[in-house]
Amino acid sequence: MSNPTQTPSFSGWAATAPGAPLQRHSYDPGPLAADEVQVVVEYCGVCHSDQSMIDNEWGLTQYPFIPGHEVVGRIEQVGDRVKGLQVGQRVGIGWYKGSCMHCAPCREGSHNLCGSARPTIIGSNGGFADRLRAHWAWAIPLPDGLDPALVGPLFCAGSTVFNPLLSFGVKPTDRVGVVGIGGLGHLALKFLNAWGCEVTAFTSSLNKQDEARRLGAHKVVASTDSRALKGIAGTLDFLLVTANADLDWTAMIGTLGTRGRVNFVGVVPGAIPVHVFNLMLQQKSLSASPVGSPAAMAKMLEFCARHQIVPQVEQFAMSQVNAAIDHLRSGKARYRVVLDASR
Amino acid sequence: MSNPTQTPSFSGWAATAPGAPLQRHSYDPGPLAADEVQVVVEYCGVCHSDQSMIDNEWGLTQYPFIPGHEVVGRIEQVGDRVKGLQVGQRVGIGWYKGSCMHCAPCREGSHNLCGSARPTIIGSNGGFADRLRAHWAWAIPLPDGLDPALVGPLFCAGSTVFNPLLSFGVKPTDRVGVVGIGGLGHLALKFLNAWGCEVTAFTSSLNKQDEARRLGAHKVVASTDSRALKGIAGTLDFLLVTANADLDWTAMIGTLGTRGRVNFVGVVPGAIPVHVFNLMLQQKSLSASPVGSPAAMAKMLEFCARHQIVPQVEQFAMSQVNAAIDHLRSGKARYRVVLDASR
Repeated sequence: MSNPTQTPSFSGWAATAPGAPLQRHSYDPGPLAADEVQVVVEYCGVCHSDQSMIDNEWGLTQYPFIPGHEVVGRIEQVGDRVKGLQVGQRVGIGWYKGSCMHCAPCREGSHNLCGSARPTIIGSNGGFADRLRAHWAWAIPLPDGLDPALVGPLFCAGSTVFNPLLSFGVKPTDRVGVVGIGGLGHLALKFLNAWGCEVTAFTSSLNKQDEARRLGAHKVVASTDSRALKGIAGTLDFLLVTANADLDWTAMIGTLGTRGRVNFVGVVPGAIPVHVFNLMLQQKSLSASPVGSPAAMAKMLEFCARHQIVPQVEQFAMSQVNAAIDHLRSGKARYRVVLDASR
Repeated sequence: MSNPTQTPSFSGWAATAPGAPLQRHSYDPGPLAADEVQVVVEYCGVCHSDQSMIDNEWGLTQYPFIPGHEVVGRIEQVGDRVKGLQVGQRVGIGWYKGSCMHCAPCREGSHNLCGSARPTIIGSNGGFADRLRAHWAWAIPLPDGLDPALVGPLFCAGSTVFNPLLSFGVKPTDRVGVVGIGGLGHLALKFLNAWGCEVTAFTSSLNKQDEARRLGAHKVVASTDSRALKGIAGTLDFLLVTANADLDWTAMIGTLGTRGRVNFVGVVPGAIPVHVFNLMLQQKSLSASPVGSPAAMAKMLEFCARHQIVPQVEQFAMSQVNAAIDHLRSGKARYRVVLDASR
């Protein structure tokens, strides 16, 4: 139980009202639970969903609110029942910081599909702070050979685009499209290139063409050019949609070949009007997926270490968090912003 | 090449205008192609898509037009390059009677996804006739132990609902729903019961409850009862939609659990409004599928022979074809109509 007379011990940067600049804020995290680790934050990525929560876009924010869910740091304390982790170990914490551990999805290793998984920044404070806690299963050890200053975004953005490659069995012989070249999409291009696929980038900003090729795309297509979409009709095995915009989904589905799948990892604003006939003759699928399980995140990190894949980031001092958020809001981040907690 | 002076040699029942009663009609099929077999029709099922073609619902019908694509009969002639089939052998022919044999899907065994697969009754005459031809790959030998008078509907209706069980890896431990208990759905219930699944039938006619249980359902749910749908929310692994009606698809998707899939085998009239968020957290999929490949049809027949699964049919003499079609139009067919070509 928390002790109201105790000095608050976690210190971070909190929003106090929708859209307001973050201010220094301290809170008392209460005693450490037996299955939790306590991490000293070294770096934390800034994600669009931090911004959504700051602005209370989803109606779920309780102020004061400390955002941040792409944390890298060192364990400084472990609860009595923590398994497999030690004090001093460097770990990452992403969108979820806990799950029930006993439901069917948890038992099957799909903790990311647990109905009572606990998002790091919904209903509690996140990683724009000196410290953060997580259930031991959701604190993922960092392998050697990855720069801790760069990898924070792997724990949300990276895991979100890596999970479908594992979950839906994308093969190195597949032709894969990535829609949207931002925080998520740029990582998808890097992953898929190393995965061995033929990679096509779909972007609404054709000035990102060279960028997309440098990141791993073999081809670039304008996502709003209906002739270009027709030109590649029937060719893709898998289409990963990272964009949060309403596009011509019938044309997008048309780019898929037999048994092709379009998978959404961003919540597009409108409902997607799916005409069954457009899926039927070539047996196509449409799906959506969340971040990966702890096991999938560990595989992602191992894959990143082997292929030297890291997010392309711009670093800000944690004390410059408001400048960092403004930069994200401007749409100019290339491609992910990371806060350095030591500054 | 066809010889205009030759007496027409195939005789059947043709529609001469949309919705008109069928009349006796003969046509010259031309010489037998080297890769074709010629089959003497013994039985032919009557499918809703025969009715759609008779009525020119899809704008594809050229009159006079002989329907019929659920044929069982004996081979009386084989072309020079026919493989694996002999004169006298009993075979079935379904929705497709040929495919290109050289495209990627054909080479991979998915001839049913061939972009130039030839539907039996689109652009040519079907099996409400004394004879029908098909490419050898699409004339599927009947195993011993299945009554040829009953199995015609397996070649379209049966294959349509069996294909997704194979294609999407439905497991005997899965909880599966079947929406619509008609020509397709009643076979799906039988298949899934023998497949080992927990089977839930969704029907708009609750007077089909006992029927559905007799056919293999363990549970029956009213497909229009929103409380009943909520009652089973999150429980199904697979939902097979055989109905051609617009239902509350958001509620239907809600019946799926983690990694659940809804697969359509009927073309529902309206677009399905898919909200990405409703798929994302539990990583659900939506898809549609056509009839099965020749290999899948052979597996289906073997499975049917082992489990003694046959369609529940009502038989009419071929000479009573118009009465048979009227019966189908009345919605009272339980569950499939078959024409006996000997009468």
